[in-house]
Amino acid sequence: MDINLVFIFICSILVFFMTPGLSFFYGGMVPKKQVNNTLMSVFIMCSIPVLLWVIMGYSLSFSGNNWNFIGDLHNFMLHNVKFDAASTFASGKINNITYLIFQMMFAIITPALFVGAIVGRMDFKFLISFVILWSIFIYYPMVHMVWGGGFLQSFGALDFAGGLVVHINAGITALVLAWFLGPRLIKQTGSPANLSWVVLGTSMLWVGWYGFNAGSALGMNGIAMQAMLTTTVATATAMLVWICLDVFMKRNASLIGICTGAVCGLVAITPACGYVTISGAMAIGLVATATSYFFINEIKPIIKVDDTLDAFGCHGISGIVGSIMTGLFATKTVNPDIAENGLFEGGGWHLLGIQVGATLITIAFTLVVATIIVKVLKLVIRMRISKEEERLREALED
Amino acid sequence: MDINLVFIFICSILVFFMTPGLSFFYGGMVPKKQVNNTLMSVFIMCSIPVLLWVIMGYSLSFSGNNWNFIGDLHNFMLHNVKFDAASTFASGKINNITYLIFQMMFAIITPALFVGAIVGRMDFKFLISFVILWSIFIYYPMVHMVWGGGFLQSFGALDFAGGLVVHINAGITALVLAWFLGPRLIKQTGSPANLSWVVLGTSMLWVGWYGFNAGSALGMNGIAMQAMLTTTVATATAMLVWICLDVFMKRNASLIGICTGAVCGLVAITPACGYVTISGAMAIGLVATATSYFFINEIKPIIKVDDTLDAFGCHGISGIVGSIMTGLFATKTVNPDIAENGLFEGGGWHLLGIQVGATLITIAFTLVVATIIVKVLKLVIRMRISKEEERLREALED
Amino acid sequence: MDINLVFIFICSILVFFMTPGLSFFYGGMVPKKQVNNTLMSVFIMCSIPVLLWVIMGYSLSFSGNNWNFIGDLHNFMLHNVKFDAASTFASGKINNITYLIFQMMFAIITPALFVGAIVGRMDFKFLISFVILWSIFIYYPMVHMVWGGGFLQSFGALDFAGGLVVHINAGITALVLAWFLGPRLIKQTGSPANLSWVVLGTSMLWVGWYGFNAGSALGMNGIAMQAMLTTTVATATAMLVWICLDVFMKRNASLIGICTGAVCGLVAITPACGYVTISGAMAIGLVATATSYFFINEIKPIIKVDDTLDAFGCHGISGIVGSIMTGLFATKTVNPDIAENGLFEGGGWHLLGIQVGATLITIAFTLVVATIIVKVLKLVIRMRISKEEERLREALED
Repeated sequence: MDINLVFIFICSILVFFMTPGLSFFYGGMVPKKQVNNTLMSVFIMCSIPVLLWVIMGYSLSFSGNNWNFIGDLHNFMLHNVKFDAASTFASGKINNITYLIFQMMFAIITPALFVGAIVGRMDFKFLISFVILWSIFIYYPMVHMVWGGGFLQSFGALDFAGGLVVHINAGITALVLAWFLGPRLIKQTGSPANLSWVVLGTSMLWVGWYGFNAGSALGMNGIAMQAMLTTTVATATAMLVWICLDVFMKRNASLIGICTGAVCGLVAITPACGYVTISGAMAIGLVATATSYFFINEIKPIIKVDDTLDAFGCHGISGIVGSIMTGLFATKTVNPDIAENGLFEGGGWHLLGIQVGATLITIAFTLVVATIIVKVLKLVIRMRISKEEERLREALED
Repeated sequence: MDINLVFIFICSILVFFMTPGLSFFYGGMVPKKQVNNTLMSVFIMCSIPVLLWVIMGYSLSFSGNNWNFIGDLHNFMLHNVKFDAASTFASGKINNITYLIFQMMFAIITPALFVGAIVGRMDFKFLISFVILWSIFIYYPMVHMVWGGGFLQSFGALDFAGGLVVHINAGITALVLAWFLGPRLIKQTGSPANLSWVVLGTSMLWVGWYGFNAGSALGMNGIAMQAMLTTTVATATAMLVWICLDVFMKRNASLIGICTGAVCGLVAITPACGYVTISGAMAIGLVATATSYFFINEIKPIIKVDDTLDAFGCHGISGIVGSIMTGLFATKTVNPDIAENGLFEGGGWHLLGIQVGATLITIAFTLVVATIIVKVLKLVIRMRISKEEERLREALED
Repeated sequence: MDINLVFIFICSILVFFMTPGLSFFYGGMVPKKQVNNTLMSVFIMCSIPVLLWVIMGYSLSFSGNNWNFIGDLHNFMLHNVKFDAASTFASGKINNITYLIFQMMFAIITPALFVGAIVGRMDFKFLISFVILWSIFIYYPMVHMVWGGGFLQSFGALDFAGGLVVHINAGITALVLAWFLGPRLIKQTGSPANLSWVVLGTSMLWVGWYGFNAGSALGMNGIAMQAMLTTTVATATAMLVWICLDVFMKRNASLIGICTGAVCGLVAITPACGYVTISGAMAIGLVATATSYFFINEIKPIIKVDDTLDAFGCHGISGIVGSIMTGLFATKTVNPDIAENGLFEGGGWHLLGIQVGATLITIAFTLVVATIIVKVLKLVIRMRISKEEERLREALED
């Protein structure tokens, strides 16, 4: 087990590294005056979600099982957790303390993702309050349902590293928040603040994603290395696809395009990375990126939801495509632990059906509960700052 | 042992990563014209302290024992070091070469910390000369006394990852340097150069600190993971405390505040991380950050020592609080290796007394020797550059 | 073997991290309007070379052996590769999938290096096409010849981590490209875009280089730690040498100088790091950096090849010096696997002759083939963009 501990130790650090990476990915895309606020809105996730996780998050996710939906508070403040005992949720590959640290890093990055939809106009107090309620009523139940013994797990849904729990969840939440928040008053006209920061953010996300995806094997084994390989291949494909689409549609490759493409590839391969071959990884990278590209460039301008930095367009869309395509390309050749092959690997329609079902359930669950949280929270805290305050806050912040 | 080698290999790299991180943490806070000089003053620590360490630092720290105070020169240029043999200083958990590399990274970051007190006005030659003398007469003795078999170790002082050796030492040195150097001629009026760099620096420090704190267990075990957990919890608490204080005192959370808060938390938990529970970690994060906040905002303006970037306010103050509070919260439940529990864990006043004593000795030792070095050095090299030269150098540097 | 897998897993991630690092190292040195194009030209290497590697690169490098020069296509698309079997190219220390991932990261960073010679004026299509042909006709043969069972390996040439394959190769290619491309129309007059990015790039390269150099031991052992130590010592020496030369020749240390010095040190120690003592590492760092300094400041202005960011001056020159000096300082005391000692370690002239020979062969091979590729490619794609297009592209890119 000791080897797995070193492996998950480093993977946890890598996943942690993603959150500041995301702050730069987002911070580099907004106008100069909003950079600090964007960085702060993301970086604050390294604080509150950590405390919430050790206080009740781990417990609600992994202790007990109520209605196959959520855990209990038996491990409140990590009481009664035998740190050195092998974790049953990790098939005994690592011990409880290591597993809870690894999972803690996921509880940090996921709420950070949806910040991309609301930059520059949400009241900071609303954001904090929303993150707390979202963690309790959406995130911990999702973790419990998929990894903690809840019904999506027993259902047989495949989600190697967090397509459902992290990306679809965050993407749908982003959509709900952007919808209720409304579009920015002043449409961004100038150039983004600084593309160098976008590249840095993308690099940190990519590097951290190795911890995210390979680490989800929860042990140093062939599946972990396979996940590392498919992650790299899918992302490389996604970058190339975005460039080609940009050149074909707009006659010009752009730096921001290859970065967005890379992130779409990383998102899409997340649920599939430990189950598919490199051909499967290429196919997933290609289709997901093309779909996200189409959504962001063709659909988004029509629906007029101001998903400012494409948190839904990237994480939501590519997450959904990746989750469903896992039902096409998953194969026992790569991962003998799975019960059946995907459609294109000779396994029939069954797994695909499960993947579509689990994806739809996740979408519906997140959509409904996020809507309820927003509606309730709006009764007590204003959701949106006024234009004057926005300027004032900016000024004070420096 | 091989597992521990991989663990310390990666931890050493993480600690190395802290020094450029610190250069950005500091570089992002100074006015634009001083950024390059600040970066260079920090980054140069990756050169000279490395050479000094392999030439004589390791030897003076870990070879032999003179007056329980310092080693000898038997391992000059690493001669006579059996690289592959188990290190007695690491309780045999890793071999000598790995231990000396890990310790080398600490010898780089520590002098980089006090650069924060003197940016923009110290003569570069003075800084270099001071670092060399400080390494020989302060740093290596401190390492020897706390980790190399010297009297603070036999005394029973607990310092898991370097509260005494690194943070209190660097903080007090910063205070001495700022005192003798005098305040900046032109008080900084504008905004800091670029807060994005401060966030990047904080992130790199945080990530690197996992190597620093968990790595100080010197092996992949439960204590290392506990250190990782307490480090995260203390830092998350510290961030939240700083935000709350900022909102309460100044009616506005600030990006620079959550970064400073995070660093205070990281500093404070350093001596305690392998000895305390998560409740202890929360308490340490809370008290240390509040104390640093109070010092920086209320005391510093009165004493008029221009500790420009709060090297003392952050590392000194939070380091002292963390070191003393280790005497309150250390517990055998977490770490069976320690001889007695802290005051709040039912162990009586004894450990607290030792921690206070060791802290005072470190402060006194550093204060006296740093003062002597500065006074002697001022006789041969000017300490401060003239305003004209400062401008001229800036111009030449680009 | 499992321990080695964790070790190479993390080393692979570190090497991957070097490529974005390089994009910032280069991006920080160019004028502001060229930053985005420079970042994109480097970052694109995370896409195309990855795909090329899994499609045919691994196969051409490591499957079969044609004329001791190149492999075959038996492992096209990684078919027939037994992922879990021990890799013979890694002496069985790790399995095939891990070895191919580690090597994949080298195939990304190497073409990224020569981008430094052509920034701001090469047609992007030409660059992409060149990288593809260069990979097939230069890079994979070089890998095969040095590490895949080709004739340089049987010849007895020592190249611990890629002096020949990576640095001399990339340096000479840079020279060829800069020669055929011609100098920039407008000589850069202003200051570089942003030195903070150069420091960040240098830091990421340095950190990544530990994966590069220590990882090339292909297992967690004493040689890996020795490589980490010599890498640090050579780089620290190189930084100091560059500063001293700058102070002596130009009366002023510069930030860009200590960064360039550090990279020269890292390059120079690459072929030697697992074979030499720390004294050897110091000597290599000193001589290589001094040679690069002399070339960049004295020779380059004469030959008038516009190697814009010193890809040849740094990687080529320091790579050649390091490769040859391996023949002076390699010693069985450090690495019992080698057949004979270097000249200064009592081994006579033989190893030195081999190192000089292997270096000359690499130079000649790269020079000739790169020239042929450029000449052929120029027939179908224009190599250089027009000044007007350069401005237009810049404008569109934002």
